[in-house]
Amino acid sequence: MSGERLIYLPLGGAGEIGMNAYVYGYGKPGKERLMLVDVGVAFPDMDSSPGVDLILPDLSWLVENLDRLDGIVITHAHEDHIGALGHLWPLLKKPVYARKFTASIGRLKFEEAGLPLDAIHTLEARPAAVEIGPFTVQFLPMPHSIPESSGLIIDSPAGRILHTGDFKRDPSPIVGEGWDDAMLEAVAAETPVKAMMCDSTNVFSLNPGRSEASLAEPLTELIRGASGMVVATTFASNVARLKTLAEAARAADRSICVLGRAMKRMVSVAEETRVLTGFPRVVSPEEALEIPRRNLMLLVTGSQGERRAASAALSRGKYLGFEMKQGDTFLFSSKTIPGNECGVYKLMNAYSEMGVNVVDDNNGKYHVSGHANRPDLEHIHRIFLPDMLVPMHGEHRHLREHVRIAHEAGIAGIVATNGMMVDLTGDVPKVVQHIEAGRVYLDGTAQIGSMDGVVRDRIRLALNGLVMVTIILDEQNEPLGEAWVELMGLPAIGLGERPLTETLEAELTEFLERASGKIISDDDKLDEALKRIVRQVAMEEIGKKPEVRVVISRLTAE
Amino acid sequence: MSGERLIYLPLGGAGEIGMNAYVYGYGKPGKERLMLVDVGVAFPDMDSSPGVDLILPDLSWLVENLDRLDGIVITHAHEDHIGALGHLWPLLKKPVYARKFTASIGRLKFEEAGLPLDAIHTLEARPAAVEIGPFTVQFLPMPHSIPESSGLIIDSPAGRILHTGDFKRDPSPIVGEGWDDAMLEAVAAETPVKAMMCDSTNVFSLNPGRSEASLAEPLTELIRGASGMVVATTFASNVARLKTLAEAARAADRSICVLGRAMKRMVSVAEETRVLTGFPRVVSPEEALEIPRRNLMLLVTGSQGERRAASAALSRGKYLGFEMKQGDTFLFSSKTIPGNECGVYKLMNAYSEMGVNVVDDNNGKYHVSGHANRPDLEHIHRIFLPDMLVPMHGEHRHLREHVRIAHEAGIAGIVATNGMMVDLTGDVPKVVQHIEAGRVYLDGTAQIGSMDGVVRDRIRLALNGLVMVTIILDEQNEPLGEAWVELMGLPAIGLGERPLTETLEAELTEFLERASGKIISDDDKLDEALKRIVRQVAMEEIGKKPEVRVVISRLTAE
Repeated sequence: MSGERLIYLPLGGAGEIGMNAYVYGYGKPGKERLMLVDVGVAFPDMDSSPGVDLILPDLSWLVENLDRLDGIVITHAHEDHIGALGHLWPLLKKPVYARKFTASIGRLKFEEAGLPLDAIHTLEARPAAVEIGPFTVQFLPMPHSIPESSGLIIDSPAGRILHTGDFKRDPSPIVGEGWDDAMLEAVAAETPVKAMMCDSTNVFSLNPGRSEASLAEPLTELIRGASGMVVATTFASNVARLKTLAEAARAADRSICVLGRAMKRMVSVAEETRVLTGFPRVVSPEEALEIPRRNLMLLVTGSQGERRAASAALSRGKYLGFEMKQGDTFLFSSKTIPGNECGVYKLMNAYSEMGVNVVDDNNGKYHVSGHANRPDLEHIHRIFLPDMLVPMHGEHRHLREHVRIAHEAGIAGIVATNGMMVDLTGDVPKVVQHIEAGRVYLDGTAQIGSMDGVVRDRIRLALNGLVMVTIILDEQNEPLGEAWVELMGLPAIGLGERPLTETLEAELTEFLERASGKIISDDDKLDEALKRIVRQVAMEEIGKKPEVRVVISRLTAE
Repeated sequence: MSGERLIYLPLGGAGEIGMNAYVYGYGKPGKERLMLVDVGVAFPDMDSSPGVDLILPDLSWLVENLDRLDGIVITHAHEDHIGALGHLWPLLKKPVYARKFTASIGRLKFEEAGLPLDAIHTLEARPAAVEIGPFTVQFLPMPHSIPESSGLIIDSPAGRILHTGDFKRDPSPIVGEGWDDAMLEAVAAETPVKAMMCDSTNVFSLNPGRSEASLAEPLTELIRGASGMVVATTFASNVARLKTLAEAARAADRSICVLGRAMKRMVSVAEETRVLTGFPRVVSPEEALEIPRRNLMLLVTGSQGERRAASAALSRGKYLGFEMKQGDTFLFSSKTIPGNECGVYKLMNAYSEMGVNVVDDNNGKYHVSGHANRPDLEHIHRIFLPDMLVPMHGEHRHLREHVRIAHEAGIAGIVATNGMMVDLTGDVPKVVQHIEAGRVYLDGTAQIGSMDGVVRDRIRLALNGLVMVTIILDEQNEPLGEAWVELMGLPAIGLGERPLTETLEAELTEFLERASGKIISDDDKLDEALKRIVRQVAMEEIGKKPEVRVVISRLTAE
């Protein structure tokens, strides 16, 4: 009989950036009591997940072990940490704990989804604590690019875990608690840290991170120097940046108007929960339209070039009465997330065509990251000197590099990606089991497994186009009429300027006339034969092998 | 009656990066004799052009005015300048002029396409010249990231044009002629430049460009310090980089093996045309497999994460007998072109999983750009002091910024994007006409207009999935059998765990039973009614409106 063990199991966020979901467990092997940290989403793209609305972590393993799950903790309100909560909570139905800003955002999601608001419990930052099964959990405030982001101090009978959450080392984050070495050292002195699960996003950034406060001066200067209207965008949840931008606008004698639902919501939740105070007065769009352009700044959503955001609407022309003009300035106080470049450049070019001056982050002059850079990671390693480091929140290359720098500092480390259950009980982390982890696509209202073939079919349709063949046979296997062909996503004309459908129909009809009864009477064989002909003819006519669907209707005497 | 005029008309490359095709003309308005500079491609992507093989400029206007076209000049052998030549030359059939390396690459393309090799004429660099209609054209050697890249000196009765082509200000480009202020100043002193058409790619890069020669030392140090096998990738056509890498490998006592067809071809054409000399001896893959890993460097294609390149093949496992292992190094001596990030990161993570050390350009330590940065652009403006500047090779934002810096230097400038015909005859450039310019998709062997709807249909299929409905009616408009539904790219199961096809079939069949004769006898009305039902049911069942195709078969007595 073996004793208790302490385990860590990432189900999302380890081996990718996004879709964070980390499980901790303590107890006898296979009977550990479990706790889930974060339930985030990842965002789909046309290359790998066309048509999909959101990507959710596959929590099947947790659902199978639901009687062992005692609670859910959310570290902060970014979508990659909280975005799947409304979609997946109905599978779990366990109490959720978060700090007040995060809890408010969570309750808005629950309200929209018709879920019970009282499932979300507000927990203050340490020393407040909650017991979740065998764990005692405290929120450890950590600066990040959203209010009240927190690390977790997780005490278990097998020792203390420090789960950093997303963080940056910023003594002056404008909103919320600043980085405080003395406080962290005090925490470190309380109890040794057995294992640190640590943000790895910026492990390849070699310079120390810069403070949010460093942006105030350059932003003020920029906005003061602008002639026409200024429109600024950043991540909607970066409330500190919104404040910095708004104060810079005020210093430049400009009124502020916020456009975009997500941004208005973030500001209002931040004010309601009192994490944001002293935000300059905001004018309504109607009021703003009466203000001279050089006395106005719009704060808008859409820093990533999202098609439905305010920034994109403004790039297409009039939006809520506003129209950008020659000499106006559009500021991206944000970085472009890899994969979003084309959308952002499209915006920039649209503004350029309007004669608008487009200003990007200017190599960091107008934007700082919300994540700890390598020297900052090394700094937190030194403060807590954990027995072992398990990097999270990163692609494989980030996790591996993070382990490498931990090793250099003499700390045991392990690369654990989604589905790898790690035993933390001993002196070094050990992979003890591989769990089936994966992605679930939220597609309309349906949840479909990423391996179900649905999205693979969409990609094939997009790459290859589709030929649909309909044939009708009577009881004697005689074709009634000719084969009927329709195309989707394929050129209409083949070689010799002849319509591709005609060529295909002629070939298929000819085949049906000469095909043996053995083939024509067997749906599968006939289907295969017709598909082969379509592919072959298409290859000759348009140099491409399309997807083919064949519908064979057999009529019987009634 | 008006006199002659000198015109410039970009048909590709102005307002985008890629697909370069610029027309110059001289003569009476509407009767100008024409010359085409470059016939490049752009590359498709899943977002906007799924399934497409290549994007070609739409040369319809040129084809309509073919009797006025006297020749084609190619500035250099990058695909965005020469890639469409083999596909579009059959529409033009005019003599092509290029320097010998470029001409050799062109002839290889013509050979593959079965086109007459003698249509491509080799022209040496200046003072050699060719008359193309009213123009006298000379190649002006310019350093770039491929051998024998050239600007064009185009003399016309209305004055001299300097078409820079792609260039960087590099006195030591390793392969080919270095940047030479004295030579350029001599050219400038010959004849004043009326108009300069200038590369705009790096107008937002504020520091002067660095020389290819600056890479030798860091690369040698890196490769010398590596323990296992080194695999390096860069753009296949960057022959200078290949030489730098190969020499660094030799200095580190490593043999060199080249993998990837495009790269082997570039090296061999460069050696045959004598633009590349002194390239270290290359071993075959068979020989390389006998060499200890720490004495070997592979040079491979696929710096942009291309799925079919050698780099990707190695990331998937064994390739031509080679297999990357723990402790090997993979070097990206290249930058990631915007839009390719995800593919490159995928490679990096795959190598990371193998334990391979992945090294990227390291903020320019292991890669320099082939394009002139802003100070270098200002430098060439100063050398030639053109009457007017027309930026090319850039998105709108690049062109606009380039005009702005020209204005600051007191040079008249204009943003002219694809399709804008500019009259250069007077003191300032003037847009005189808008020509229909656009993109043609090479799709398999077919060429389809980007506005034809084919690709739009593919995108819709990928985003929305497809429902195919088949119904058969007899002469009395009675359904024969039930409606038949097939899905592609849609979840199989709807609400209440019922198959979506069943729900759809039931609803459609019910509709057919109660539909009026007026609807059921009219193909268009019936089609519309069935589509509406499918969309509505799908919206209820899966929260999504799919594409729908309906095939109605009407059987008549024979």
